[in-house]
Amino acid sequence: MTDNPRVLIVGAGAIGSFYGAILSRGGAQVEAVSRSDAAVIRERGFRINSHDLGDLSFRPHAVYERVEDVQQPPDFVLLSVKVLDDLDRAALIRPAVGPGTVLVLVENGIDIERPIHDAFPDNPLVSGLAFVAVSRTGQAQSEHKAYGRLVVGEYPSGAGDAAQRFSALLTAGGVECPVSESLVTERWRKAVWNAAFNPVSVIAGGATTTTILDAPRGEGFMVTLMQEVCDVAAAAGHPMPESLPEKSIGGTRKMPPYHNSMALDFLNGRPMEVEAILGNVIRAAQEHGVSVPHLASVYTVTKMLQQRIADEGHPLGV
Amino acid sequence: MTDNPRVLIVGAGAIGSFYGAILSRGGAQVEAVSRSDAAVIRERGFRINSHDLGDLSFRPHAVYERVEDVQQPPDFVLLSVKVLDDLDRAALIRPAVGPGTVLVLVENGIDIERPIHDAFPDNPLVSGLAFVAVSRTGQAQSEHKAYGRLVVGEYPSGAGDAAQRFSALLTAGGVECPVSESLVTERWRKAVWNAAFNPVSVIAGGATTTTILDAPRGEGFMVTLMQEVCDVAAAAGHPMPESLPEKSIGGTRKMPPYHNSMALDFLNGRPMEVEAILGNVIRAAQEHGVSVPHLASVYTVTKMLQQRIADEGHPLGV
Repeated sequence: MTDNPRVLIVGAGAIGSFYGAILSRGGAQVEAVSRSDAAVIRERGFRINSHDLGDLSFRPHAVYERVEDVQQPPDFVLLSVKVLDDLDRAALIRPAVGPGTVLVLVENGIDIERPIHDAFPDNPLVSGLAFVAVSRTGQAQSEHKAYGRLVVGEYPSGAGDAAQRFSALLTAGGVECPVSESLVTERWRKAVWNAAFNPVSVIAGGATTTTILDAPRGEGFMVTLMQEVCDVAAAAGHPMPESLPEKSIGGTRKMPPYHNSMALDFLNGRPMEVEAILGNVIRAAQEHGVSVPHLASVYTVTKMLQQRIADEGHPLGV
Repeated sequence: MTDNPRVLIVGAGAIGSFYGAILSRGGAQVEAVSRSDAAVIRERGFRINSHDLGDLSFRPHAVYERVEDVQQPPDFVLLSVKVLDDLDRAALIRPAVGPGTVLVLVENGIDIERPIHDAFPDNPLVSGLAFVAVSRTGQAQSEHKAYGRLVVGEYPSGAGDAAQRFSALLTAGGVECPVSESLVTERWRKAVWNAAFNPVSVIAGGATTTTILDAPRGEGFMVTLMQEVCDVAAAAGHPMPESLPEKSIGGTRKMPPYHNSMALDFLNGRPMEVEAILGNVIRAAQEHGVSVPHLASVYTVTKMLQQRIADEGHPLGV
């Protein structure tokens, strides 16, 4: 690796381009793949306005329409696409992956590393969990509203060299990037909230956190769901503190009412990461023999809603 | 009672006016209460086209805008309104109920007789379950598509005189009206399907029966929900045949895809009978100590959706 490592961003949406900007500030040569926005990015780069960090707009060193167009494997591939059933993410990045390429996943969900690890068992795999509020506002244009921390770790575990090198780049760019010895545990911790709140908000018609908690039995139901996720996490070898569900509710109560990411996807007619966020939790429960009747109910109804969209169109007409 | 008993229809929508038409053909003097449609009904009566029974249009003997306007208590009050939290049905009919008035409920749900029985403990109470496909097509105008059978019985049980008399009138009008010794058992039998399919269709975004059953794990989930309703029914003293859930699925599979009544209410922005159809099943489960985690999940999310409509507006904008 040179002093200016090359990072290829695959999935240069709001989150991918935000971390691309930070890596660029940290000294990396950032390249981007974008089928839909390549022309705009070549013309004027990414426009990113940050409330905390000022103007993060930047122009990548290279812009590709397809991963197949990348000539030299980069030092890092940062994959930041939605995890959806019909997208083979390993096949997507394969043309750009060389023998030493470090793969970095900045994506939601549980067990989302497995297919990448299986496809590239000899490449270092860094799993990342983003705590960031950034929204796309147009083609290659986004607004960073708050936070930014990216927690990383090697998959399946460890805080090895690849994670350290990636963390150093991001830290140099001005964003916190702690390295965890057990990133999968961190993923489960995040899943406790996500697997419960995201699908419920959708099947409640695209409801805010506050509407969910204020419904009759709402708060108790969310605690029950989160407790079931904790039971699965513990069975999978990642025990959570007993107080986590109640504390998460307390934290959510302190925030203004908001639509979580899956609710926003639903309300805007975009595909939803149901399998990554909840389906994989259900499968882990089955694998470890954990009873999750409430989570399974939410999962099944969410899949029915997806079936409804496939059979009868989106109920919102979007 | 005279040879031409007086029947007052309260809630003269599609179902109420259909049975009013049949009772009128059976020789009853039918009167109707309708706040919104009284002028139209006075002018030209109810227009009811029936695929099976021909033109059922009829003009009531009297039309009132409010129950308070009824001067003489009728022989029968047929109550056919939606069972909603904010409607006190006992208070609604009280001005028309005399000492001998028979109260007939043609309404959906479980335990919907209780508040009427408590308010009028000395009046005969006939509970009725309609198996009819009839839709409102305009003011005091509807279309009867199929079926028509009304199963009646006295509440809390028995096939007494009041139910027999009402049945005779309806039968004379040309519609089957069997009298059940245990109407509440019949209500539970109907609830096995309704408590499962109605709310699920709503939180799945207003899905058809076929979409629900064809979703991943969809059929198994519906069987689980129906089994939980059977468990509650058994604990409440109304055991169902073990094969009922599977048989109900088979029957549903034979029908073309359709939106059930609660799905139609949701899709059209009308109030939904969540408590009558599912909430009262949940309360019966609690009363009898029956575990219903899947039904409780569906119930809680459906209440969240109602909260969403209250807090953020209807997701469909209707």
